[in-house]
Amino acid sequence: MKISSRVRLSWPAVFGVLLALGPVTVRSDEGMWTFHNPPVQQLKERYGFNLTTEWLDHVRLASVRFNDGGSGSFVSPHGLVLTNHHVAMGQLQKLSTSGKNYARDGFYARTRGEEIKSPDLELNVLISMQDVTARVQDAARKQTSEAEALQARKAEIARIEKESLDSSGLRSDVVSLYGGGEYWLYRYKKYTDVRLVFAPEQQIAYFGGDPDNFTYPRYCLDMALFRVYENGGPVESKHYLKWNPGGAEAGDLVFVSGHPGSTERLKTVAQLEAERDHHLPMMIRVLNRRLETLKRYGQRGSEPARQAANQILSIENALKAFKGELDGLLNPGLMKKKMKEEAEFRTLVAKNGDLESRYGGAWDELRLAQAQELERAKETFFRTLRGARLPTMALTLVLYSQEVEKPDGERLDGFHESQLESLRFRLLSPAPVYPELEIELLADSLNESLEQLGPNDAFVKAVLQGRAPVEVAKELVQGTKLTDPAFRKTLLEQGKSAIAGSKDPAIELARRVEPAVREIRKWHETKVESLTASAGEKLGKARFAVYGRSIYPEATFTLRLAFGTVKGYPMNGTLAPPKTTFFGLYDRARSFALKPPFNLPERYDQKRDQLALATPFNFVSSADIIGGNSGSPVINRAGAIVGLIFDGNIESLVGNYIYYEETNRAIAVHTAGMTEALKKLYGAAALVDELAGDARQASQ
Amino acid sequence: MKISSRVRLSWPAVFGVLLALGPVTVRSDEGMWTFHNPPVQQLKERYGFNLTTEWLDHVRLASVRFNDGGSGSFVSPHGLVLTNHHVAMGQLQKLSTSGKNYARDGFYARTRGEEIKSPDLELNVLISMQDVTARVQDAARKQTSEAEALQARKAEIARIEKESLDSSGLRSDVVSLYGGGEYWLYRYKKYTDVRLVFAPEQQIAYFGGDPDNFTYPRYCLDMALFRVYENGGPVESKHYLKWNPGGAEAGDLVFVSGHPGSTERLKTVAQLEAERDHHLPMMIRVLNRRLETLKRYGQRGSEPARQAANQILSIENALKAFKGELDGLLNPGLMKKKMKEEAEFRTLVAKNGDLESRYGGAWDELRLAQAQELERAKETFFRTLRGARLPTMALTLVLYSQEVEKPDGERLDGFHESQLESLRFRLLSPAPVYPELEIELLADSLNESLEQLGPNDAFVKAVLQGRAPVEVAKELVQGTKLTDPAFRKTLLEQGKSAIAGSKDPAIELARRVEPAVREIRKWHETKVESLTASAGEKLGKARFAVYGRSIYPEATFTLRLAFGTVKGYPMNGTLAPPKTTFFGLYDRARSFALKPPFNLPERYDQKRDQLALATPFNFVSSADIIGGNSGSPVINRAGAIVGLIFDGNIESLVGNYIYYEETNRAIAVHTAGMTEALKKLYGAAALVDELAGDARQASQ
Repeated sequence: MKISSRVRLSWPAVFGVLLALGPVTVRSDEGMWTFHNPPVQQLKERYGFNLTTEWLDHVRLASVRFNDGGSGSFVSPHGLVLTNHHVAMGQLQKLSTSGKNYARDGFYARTRGEEIKSPDLELNVLISMQDVTARVQDAARKQTSEAEALQARKAEIARIEKESLDSSGLRSDVVSLYGGGEYWLYRYKKYTDVRLVFAPEQQIAYFGGDPDNFTYPRYCLDMALFRVYENGGPVESKHYLKWNPGGAEAGDLVFVSGHPGSTERLKTVAQLEAERDHHLPMMIRVLNRRLETLKRYGQRGSEPARQAANQILSIENALKAFKGELDGLLNPGLMKKKMKEEAEFRTLVAKNGDLESRYGGAWDELRLAQAQELERAKETFFRTLRGARLPTMALTLVLYSQEVEKPDGERLDGFHESQLESLRFRLLSPAPVYPELEIELLADSLNESLEQLGPNDAFVKAVLQGRAPVEVAKELVQGTKLTDPAFRKTLLEQGKSAIAGSKDPAIELARRVEPAVREIRKWHETKVESLTASAGEKLGKARFAVYGRSIYPEATFTLRLAFGTVKGYPMNGTLAPPKTTFFGLYDRARSFALKPPFNLPERYDQKRDQLALATPFNFVSSADIIGGNSGSPVINRAGAIVGLIFDGNIESLVGNYIYYEETNRAIAVHTAGMTEALKKLYGAAALVDELAGDARQASQ
Repeated sequence: MKISSRVRLSWPAVFGVLLALGPVTVRSDEGMWTFHNPPVQQLKERYGFNLTTEWLDHVRLASVRFNDGGSGSFVSPHGLVLTNHHVAMGQLQKLSTSGKNYARDGFYARTRGEEIKSPDLELNVLISMQDVTARVQDAARKQTSEAEALQARKAEIARIEKESLDSSGLRSDVVSLYGGGEYWLYRYKKYTDVRLVFAPEQQIAYFGGDPDNFTYPRYCLDMALFRVYENGGPVESKHYLKWNPGGAEAGDLVFVSGHPGSTERLKTVAQLEAERDHHLPMMIRVLNRRLETLKRYGQRGSEPARQAANQILSIENALKAFKGELDGLLNPGLMKKKMKEEAEFRTLVAKNGDLESRYGGAWDELRLAQAQELERAKETFFRTLRGARLPTMALTLVLYSQEVEKPDGERLDGFHESQLESLRFRLLSPAPVYPELEIELLADSLNESLEQLGPNDAFVKAVLQGRAPVEVAKELVQGTKLTDPAFRKTLLEQGKSAIAGSKDPAIELARRVEPAVREIRKWHETKVESLTASAGEKLGKARFAVYGRSIYPEATFTLRLAFGTVKGYPMNGTLAPPKTTFFGLYDRARSFALKPPFNLPERYDQKRDQLALATPFNFVSSADIIGGNSGSPVINRAGAIVGLIFDGNIESLVGNYIYYEETNRAIAVHTAGMTEALKKLYGAAALVDELAGDARQASQ
């Protein structure tokens, strides 16, 4: 389970831009390829597959980004979108109440009338891609300092996005690839009327719970179906993936089209060491603490447990991922390989006088950036309002009211003209807020900031004003009206003066901390981000010069194509199989005597005799994926869907830094398993009919 | 699968006596306890279990040693003995012909008349145990050199064994425990009329083959049933384990009574380093080479494949074990722990002037012994006739004819008066010899000796006489009459002069190599064995002095009691369950699309609907076992049998050196699974009736 793109995605924002450094030696099934630089040659040489523009366009237009951190795809001509239960989990949680727990019990709309609208789900479909490298880099080149260059780049990006938005009406994002070696304008069709159609019980979607998460063999029906509406009716989705109910077979070439969140494969050795020795251990400590708080809260009763459930899953998932990554970095073999690659890259740059003079200084710049980052790492991390939703919304409102007054190019990231619509959509979400949980989370994070920064830190002083964290948290949560989306809307519309004058305790607190937050952000931008951006661009260009352009960039939560073979791998002394079956689900459940998290929903016992137990359930392939790819379709040569990515194996966690074809596996739900379950267990024949409408063509 | 006690057991013979060195810190479920020093206190404290003499006596007398390398137990009052298919494999192979492949296809005697006699299977039941430490140590104390002391010990042991044999008629073995800190006379009731009753297909006994071997979760019906006869009729086995068809459950306290072959938990750090850097890598090279030879031979056709099958299994098993052990030793954590323990032990010895002066020199003696051993390690290993059976029998005959002329105490190990009956039984086995396979194995081992020792080595010169290994091998195998057991019997009876004058080419070759073989054996005894024996005794005594006597000795293929809990363990990022079910068998088979070694015997598809798939099939416990324990019963508090040990998990391979309770697991077939399979798949209701005759009492 890879909810974690959400967690992952907050990471670069805190620790600086991801960098494209060092050499890439692409061979085998490695790579998360952009659709404008697809692995045409690799597929031809390795698989004899002819990757056509038609195939690529079709797959791209059928692929969907879940803006809250996952992927999906259109699977019917009437707007049906398939993703994971755990990607849908955020919405399921928000749609649930103390009376109806869709997140736990699942949901099935037998008619369109029963489909229910998600409170704040935005889906994106990538419509076009345009190279804007020259514009962005030219803007920076005229500047004399790195800080000015960073500013100029950001301003130019904002300008491009705004122009594009105005001219096309499409969501327009400039994406930095190859550490700034390239910039691309991605335009997205945006959908915000997205309705829930089907979700199974969480028990079966997440069978095996935290223990089985990120492992294989696996037995999870981690699926959910939404329907995209436009103008009140289902969208006619011309580009959708045909359902292949036979599904993937061992040895098949398969593709994954989705939105990997982030990778750190090209970080320098020094950066990886900092990750290993500072950032990851700190993240793990922070998350362990938050997990404890959530679990303590959940123990108060069934309703608190329900409220905390999604966040607990999310954090357990992130923790397991981070620990796997840390284990990877602690493996001397990995570091040795990274050192060797870096040494080779540096040698190749040094050999060429021109390259050396232009780019050779990048490693020192990065070392400097990193040394500076560590100087104020705690403030960077703990001078934030985090964990709870209300104070975060308040701070967003306060910053918003000031940022929108500035010229677009000078605003903080996240407040550019082109980003405002999505920001407003999230900010005005009608999703429920749980006040008691808010108090716990805010009190805990304030306590943590106090412990980490001490009472004399500017942020701590401003936020606590000498009081106890829990008092501050209670006062804020109990006093604020921000739980009401209408109140947020009013503030948003009234703008700067209204927010500056608001007596709402959340807004007041946000105003108090604003200077300290801005100060550390500015400091980070000047001392860290500008250096890493400049060095990143240098190394990106050096890499192009040395290794050519047939390489893939780090993941950026933008659309990528991966490919691989359905195959097992050596595991713990034996072999992991290419696929699993329903037999295995019942074995694992019984082998733990049905104790949670290995218990099964009732229907799985009641209707067992109707199931063809040998039906494939989950399967693995060597396709190169990472958090954010959750919900991605697995696609066959014919462009039909044969599976649904929902996880990576434990051996793939190190994939954040390095891809090992022998053991790195993407785990997917098999289309045969989904078909069998929908039909035999959920009485969802109508859905199967819609999916398999043209199964005959798809299986060709 | 742990056939390997056979391989294991040849190891100490080559590399010297196993030593009991360093401290033992027994806690938790660790330990392979002798029945004369059982873990009474641990069981009381940890499990509240009162281990009585009655319980111990009953279990001991129901326990059976398979002299060709495994364990078993009486499970009915009429001589039925349960063991593993892979322990029975040697006999199954010997009973098979090109027409009837019992090893592959299984066997079931529906009536007593159909039960077939094993050609050379000797079973032992431990009747009594007597401490003879004083006699043996006193004999040695009077000597002035270590070589003389060794000789005196051996002579005294032979005397004790002979006396006991004469007075009791029982097989009498003096066992060295605690590295010579104690000597015990074990008397065995010996059975040699052992008839095959039931074996399933090898496919299901060894489901998952080499990949799944030594791993878990597992799905193997690794069982076989023999019946012990005496005087032409089934023996009335008063002491047998009652069959508990419910079997073990998660959380249960269980016991394992069996014959662990050898362990090296108390070796010094220097010895472990030699193991890691020399012995294990050499063994792995040697076995890889033999495996290749066997596989090449097996590829000639189905009959050659049948002939080589058992040895291939055996070697694959040993290789996987050795590789696991080597991995363990290459783990710096393990070595660090061993160093720490050794340092603590030495400090405790050094603190006590008396101990230091008596035993403190042992470490240096061992270092010397080891340095000397490495000087001629290759000759020790490669100056032997190995791999093929005919030359080995010839050499045994030649040595036998001379050794029996000497006073008992001066003979080579293996030729003492008390050992002759078992030796003759093996030597006169009617088991088939496969001449073509003999040629391949002998030629290969001669080639290997030539390559390792060079053409001028005394052994190589004597054996080859300048000819090519394959020529020598062909001449020997094609010319010898040793394939005929009657011919061997004649030679054995005619004795020294007949063997000295024989023109049989195998005997001639054995005579030629005899001096070189004796020379290196003698050298090894003087330079290595006598030192390690003396140092071992010192350290054994030092350990008693420092840590007391409530410790268990290294495994010695004698009867031991282990105990533990039925429980899963953390594995590869998730949890391994306490048990598996038949569901899992079908899952694993299908998950590999029924490709060997994951294919199933026909009846498993045909009769699947009749099986209760949720029936437990295999399970794990924390009982401390090792190679040789194969076939051991798993016993509950009431003394009933609840399972059948057949393997350890991959994490237990390091158990040769260290026991980790968190991950070390013994794998067993569940009695419920055996009952279900016998009844529903094999139509062996009569057997189930015999087993479950008094199931009601057993489940109490």
